[in-house]
Amino acid sequence: MKLYSYFRSSASYRVRIALQLKGLPCEVVPVHLLKDGGEQFAADYLQLNPDALVPSLVLDDGLALTQSLAIIEYLEEVHPSPALLPENPLDRAWLRSLALSVACDIHPLNNLRVLRYLVQEMELSEEAKNRWYRHWCERGLASLEKILGSDARVGKFCYGDAPGLADCFLIPQIANAQRMQCDLSGMPTLMRINAACMELRAFIDASPAQQPDAE
Amino acid sequence: MKLYSYFRSSASYRVRIALQLKGLPCEVVPVHLLKDGGEQFAADYLQLNPDALVPSLVLDDGLALTQSLAIIEYLEEVHPSPALLPENPLDRAWLRSLALSVACDIHPLNNLRVLRYLVQEMELSEEAKNRWYRHWCERGLASLEKILGSDARVGKFCYGDAPGLADCFLIPQIANAQRMQCDLSGMPTLMRINAACMELRAFIDASPAQQPDAE
Repeated sequence: MKLYSYFRSSASYRVRIALQLKGLPCEVVPVHLLKDGGEQFAADYLQLNPDALVPSLVLDDGLALTQSLAIIEYLEEVHPSPALLPENPLDRAWLRSLALSVACDIHPLNNLRVLRYLVQEMELSEEAKNRWYRHWCERGLASLEKILGSDARVGKFCYGDAPGLADCFLIPQIANAQRMQCDLSGMPTLMRINAACMELRAFIDASPAQQPDAE
Repeated sequence: MKLYSYFRSSASYRVRIALQLKGLPCEVVPVHLLKDGGEQFAADYLQLNPDALVPSLVLDDGLALTQSLAIIEYLEEVHPSPALLPENPLDRAWLRSLALSVACDIHPLNNLRVLRYLVQEMELSEEAKNRWYRHWCERGLASLEKILGSDARVGKFCYGDAPGLADCFLIPQIANAQRMQCDLSGMPTLMRINAACMELRAFIDASPAQQPDAE
């Protein structure tokens, strides 16, 4: 398998964690989102991913899968062990809702193309753009803190004492928040889970700093 | 079951379609997002959904599920027939990626709270806000047209000749696009699938105009 990835892309980072947790060998192919007007717009890449987004997972037979959650659900179905989702449908729904809180309510607002559009087309200042970024990131993570800080299913990780689907989404979002200097005070549960994950080889090896295209 | 829903919310509309396709009885409880500063911010509702978003599905034992895709995946697991996802993991991944293109790449940018923030906090004009809306909606739907217009798996609906997961996401997004007068010319595949869905009782009954809170 090949994962088309950008080191700082949190959506790529989610899939890198899932691959590492499952111990699946995968070649990482860097797609530089900033260089030469963006390698994601190259004709070859658009064949794989018409949305010009990373990540894309290309299987050994050449078939390309897109969208980080769809890719991770596929990996879970085809390589079920170790499991990233529990068996109980209610708990599966809860973990998916945590992942989707990141994937739908935080990250899309802070995506590179959106930030660019705010500055270039909506003519917002850099300061206003950064305020926008922090607003959605802090607000979304505060909701997750409220949920995770009060649910008995939370253990060392988002669900019990083994890392799973929600951790794959939470940790890259916290990395983004830290890079953008968001205010994460008042989020002790998220910080505790983040620290527990970042002790694991899978999360370390998947992190932006460990990627071949890291700057 | 009770579905907390707003008639115009496309995320609520997705779940309403899935419930109808599966023939599951469910009471719709309106949450008016605009009235009295927003009923989604009422203390009772925040207990169900700390993000102050619709929809929330409350099960008969009182447990609340959030995030439209997580809710629909739950319904699929607990009430598997008629299926909204095929059995083949590759095709499941493809349908999920279509759903996520709507749920992550289009809808979050055009959500009520985001449009409000653009006007109230970023001080954009109504005209700029509408331009923003149409940009993301047209761009995202154009990608879907490119994908659906050239994939052999597409039939009368997004996947073959029975409605499924991707249709639950596509049709509400098209309804939003039409309401906001987006340019949908050049999207014949999407328009054809939309017309096929809107002939079905499930999609008609789930549509905004048929809701108890429709205005």
